[in-house]
Amino acid sequence: MTVPAPAVETSAEQLVERHRATLDAAVAAIAERGWWSPYAEVPKAYGENALAEGRAAFEAYLGTPFPLDQLGTLEQVGDERSPYGPRLGVTYPRPDVDVLLAAMREAIPAWRDAGAEQRAAVVLEILARLNARSAEIAEAVMHTTGQAPAMAFQAGAPHAQDRALEAVAWAVAEMRRIPSDALWVKPQGKRPPLRMHKRFTVVPRGIALVIGCNTFPTWNGYPGLFASLVCGNPVVVKPSSRAILPLAITVAVAREVLAEAGFSPDLVALAAGRADERLAAELALRPEVRIVDYTGSTGFGEWLEREARQAAVFTEKAGVNTVVIDSTDDYAGMLANLAFTLSLYSGQMCTTTQNLLVPAGGIETDQGPKTFEQVGADLAAAIDGLLGDVGRATAILGAIVSPAIAERLERADTLGDVVLASRRIEHPQFPDADVRTPALVAVSGPQAPAASEEQFGPIALLVPTGSTAESLATLRRTVREHGAITAGVYSTDEAVLAATEEVALEVGVALSANLTQGVYVNQSAAYSDFHGTALNPAANASLADAAFVAPRFGVVQSRRHVEEEG
Amino acid sequence: MTVPAPAVETSAEQLVERHRATLDAAVAAIAERGWWSPYAEVPKAYGENALAEGRAAFEAYLGTPFPLDQLGTLEQVGDERSPYGPRLGVTYPRPDVDVLLAAMREAIPAWRDAGAEQRAAVVLEILARLNARSAEIAEAVMHTTGQAPAMAFQAGAPHAQDRALEAVAWAVAEMRRIPSDALWVKPQGKRPPLRMHKRFTVVPRGIALVIGCNTFPTWNGYPGLFASLVCGNPVVVKPSSRAILPLAITVAVAREVLAEAGFSPDLVALAAGRADERLAAELALRPEVRIVDYTGSTGFGEWLEREARQAAVFTEKAGVNTVVIDSTDDYAGMLANLAFTLSLYSGQMCTTTQNLLVPAGGIETDQGPKTFEQVGADLAAAIDGLLGDVGRATAILGAIVSPAIAERLERADTLGDVVLASRRIEHPQFPDADVRTPALVAVSGPQAPAASEEQFGPIALLVPTGSTAESLATLRRTVREHGAITAGVYSTDEAVLAATEEVALEVGVALSANLTQGVYVNQSAAYSDFHGTALNPAANASLADAAFVAPRFGVVQSRRHVEEEG
Repeated sequence: MTVPAPAVETSAEQLVERHRATLDAAVAAIAERGWWSPYAEVPKAYGENALAEGRAAFEAYLGTPFPLDQLGTLEQVGDERSPYGPRLGVTYPRPDVDVLLAAMREAIPAWRDAGAEQRAAVVLEILARLNARSAEIAEAVMHTTGQAPAMAFQAGAPHAQDRALEAVAWAVAEMRRIPSDALWVKPQGKRPPLRMHKRFTVVPRGIALVIGCNTFPTWNGYPGLFASLVCGNPVVVKPSSRAILPLAITVAVAREVLAEAGFSPDLVALAAGRADERLAAELALRPEVRIVDYTGSTGFGEWLEREARQAAVFTEKAGVNTVVIDSTDDYAGMLANLAFTLSLYSGQMCTTTQNLLVPAGGIETDQGPKTFEQVGADLAAAIDGLLGDVGRATAILGAIVSPAIAERLERADTLGDVVLASRRIEHPQFPDADVRTPALVAVSGPQAPAASEEQFGPIALLVPTGSTAESLATLRRTVREHGAITAGVYSTDEAVLAATEEVALEVGVALSANLTQGVYVNQSAAYSDFHGTALNPAANASLADAAFVAPRFGVVQSRRHVEEEG
Repeated sequence: MTVPAPAVETSAEQLVERHRATLDAAVAAIAERGWWSPYAEVPKAYGENALAEGRAAFEAYLGTPFPLDQLGTLEQVGDERSPYGPRLGVTYPRPDVDVLLAAMREAIPAWRDAGAEQRAAVVLEILARLNARSAEIAEAVMHTTGQAPAMAFQAGAPHAQDRALEAVAWAVAEMRRIPSDALWVKPQGKRPPLRMHKRFTVVPRGIALVIGCNTFPTWNGYPGLFASLVCGNPVVVKPSSRAILPLAITVAVAREVLAEAGFSPDLVALAAGRADERLAAELALRPEVRIVDYTGSTGFGEWLEREARQAAVFTEKAGVNTVVIDSTDDYAGMLANLAFTLSLYSGQMCTTTQNLLVPAGGIETDQGPKTFEQVGADLAAAIDGLLGDVGRATAILGAIVSPAIAERLERADTLGDVVLASRRIEHPQFPDADVRTPALVAVSGPQAPAASEEQFGPIALLVPTGSTAESLATLRRTVREHGAITAGVYSTDEAVLAATEEVALEVGVALSANLTQGVYVNQSAAYSDFHGTALNPAANASLADAAFVAPRFGVVQSRRHVEEEG
């Protein structure tokens, strides 16, 4: 199944017809949880010239004010610099919050009254147009996040659209459970029954705020954005100051479709801030803002959870992702899989493994027993081998997204014994790009301070444990205290796999067992994998489940007596 | 349909068979939202001697330690006094919180692994046994809340059981959306597809805390209690110190069924506190406590929302319920309906109307135009007429639940001009019962301070407005700023009804239009009426919807490669 091409005619009724099959298939997919997607993940599916046209569209934005005709714009702001080098020079509306939020609130009743099916159809049309512009968005993602081109295309465009559609499907499934009306007839013994007609209306909570992150502005931002919108809430998008463009394009497309379908474009707006203001915090505390979606640091996430009490707050924060290595019957496959996981996007993913727990006495493998030191050396060699070719290395690593990550990497040797030092790689095409290979550091043991906090970026820790039993105890403690989005285990022993699964259930973290092929622990597939569990400190929400969507609307009922029909 | 009688054999598998039809009917009922119930609301359905046996069972508790064999009991505490007079003299376990919570946490894995269907069957068996003991629970509710016997029976037993089953049905419907496993097969062009097997497990958040209220310990406490339990969470019940017994019986029944079905009885426990400790607050901040359900004052509710950040917090707080009176074609019916609403349980309900908004210039009725003063006088006469007979009066009013409410009533004349003074009624059977008729007070207008805060208890305010338009503006402002669980409107003009409905949608409050028959604005029917919207300050949750149940569990997945079947 593929997504329909963008509509020529865009009345809401026409859009319902147009997108019904895709929506119903998405609702089925989240229940079945097999592989499914309407959005092709390979660029060639978008036409022979798609990439070139996408690049041209991206370049046309550079050095100009981004075209957005929002109300209440005070000035144009923005100072994005590509991790690949050049400054983008694009500027965006900085809003008069009072004016912008008032306009957004005024747009609610008509959008609410359109009902779930029409809203879903409009949202699917927005996603269809975003899909058609995948190459342009990929280029914007690449030059704001530092992702390599292939990853920026997949994760930034079709996979982000998948995560959006998945969240929309959950929301639609929930809204479809609310009947529009009901006849309530209560028996009264010998007296005539009481009869009431009741109307039920899905009502949005209010204005939703999406606070974008630097590394995955679309993939992490879309689920909340589109789930809120389909439930009837206007959405104000406050991007990271380093990654505005992908979300600006998204907002522009959403406004275009909303207007064409007869709704207020102010249902979706961009809010870019100045460096000297705290616009995200200001918006999050506004009484009109009733939903906040956030991905980023634990500090600001916890501040939002504590302070934005007028809102339902969905956060994804820091964690310490852990893999337990007990034994393997595919040593080479394990090393290759881990090497790729640690290298992909320089480990700048909330799902990248940080701590590798290995018994100090070594492990059994299909290549014979391996000491702790040998496992470290072999993993280092696997990483070196994977990244030996500059072209392949830059295609996997991308660029370091921020100076803070580069600085953390510079200090990696203070965390323990360096097993593999990070190298800088000269990017053949972008000489200013800061491209680095991962550092592999052996720490003293599970109690080492470095193993108990997130080292975001290309730093992985080899942690010696007394035994696999201690590894599991460490996994339990690490996830319970510090949180995690992912966990992994390698073992040939079903009892160890079962024990690891029991720990994963106990502390609430997604587990991948014995990944040796073309799936990696840091990959999460829409419609199938739950990203985050909301059960440990790394995230209070999961992408996507009922708890992620249901608080975005309420039900208001109206009832009155009715006479029996004659 | 009626609920099966309590089981003789109680293996979890047998209970699944036994209760499947009731559970499936409940799941269907919450989607259809017509009238439905498996629990008979009239005492005679429970046998000729049910009431006498219930009273005897209640009396057997008096003056004794309540039979609960919980771990970690430090001492027996309790000093309940019936609003009808006598002290109960029952004592309950005051827990060593560390010991109790540790035992509860240990009970989680087996309960989690039983799965949603077995847990639901056990919960339905608990509800069936509670149902069979409805008369006993009604007696306990009457003598802790001051509700009159008929109301204590209905609201305290079958209707509370309905609200429990409704919440369980929502939770089961959500858990059934999570498949136990899935095969994920992703095409890879000409290469063989990627194939993974994924297991999905519903995992409880942790220990749930139910903080009971004085007026509706079962009706308001059951939805959170049983929704948490069916999702796999142990539940610690901290009752109001004035209304322990109904929840103690509930806990005892739950423990009995859990043990018979092979689970730890520690999955449900009672925690009674001493007057000199803040046990509810202490429990709410424990890291093991991951869910809090609370009904009560806005002050403590907001404290919980702010401080108990490790938990999902569901609160129902104060509100200012409002009825807009524009016109009526059944003046007598309107007055009778309002008189009953204001009198029922002395207005000690979170759903009782407080503010009656009437144009100062009067209203049109089927009995001709009525001035503001005449409406007040006629409503006063309707209340007087309804409560003229002592037997009927006590059967409707019940008793004042706490001295604070009696004191507020004493000061009602400071709020405005008294249109109808509250009277004390001597209860023929319980001379110490504090029985009072409602006070009706005319305030100066919508801006009067009294109209902007909850006057919990039998105090209603007649509020003159410049017009129905001002009434609607007042309704909007009142609900937005102070919250409400219910709103009502009387009008013969469909445009006014539509405008009121628009306000209700805008501020998020349930609306009843032109109630003149045997349904009252303060009544909320399980499976059909949503109690609270979570959209205004009176409650951050609704009984019951997806948002009320979905955060009580997460999904933990485990995935691994699988080969193609040969």
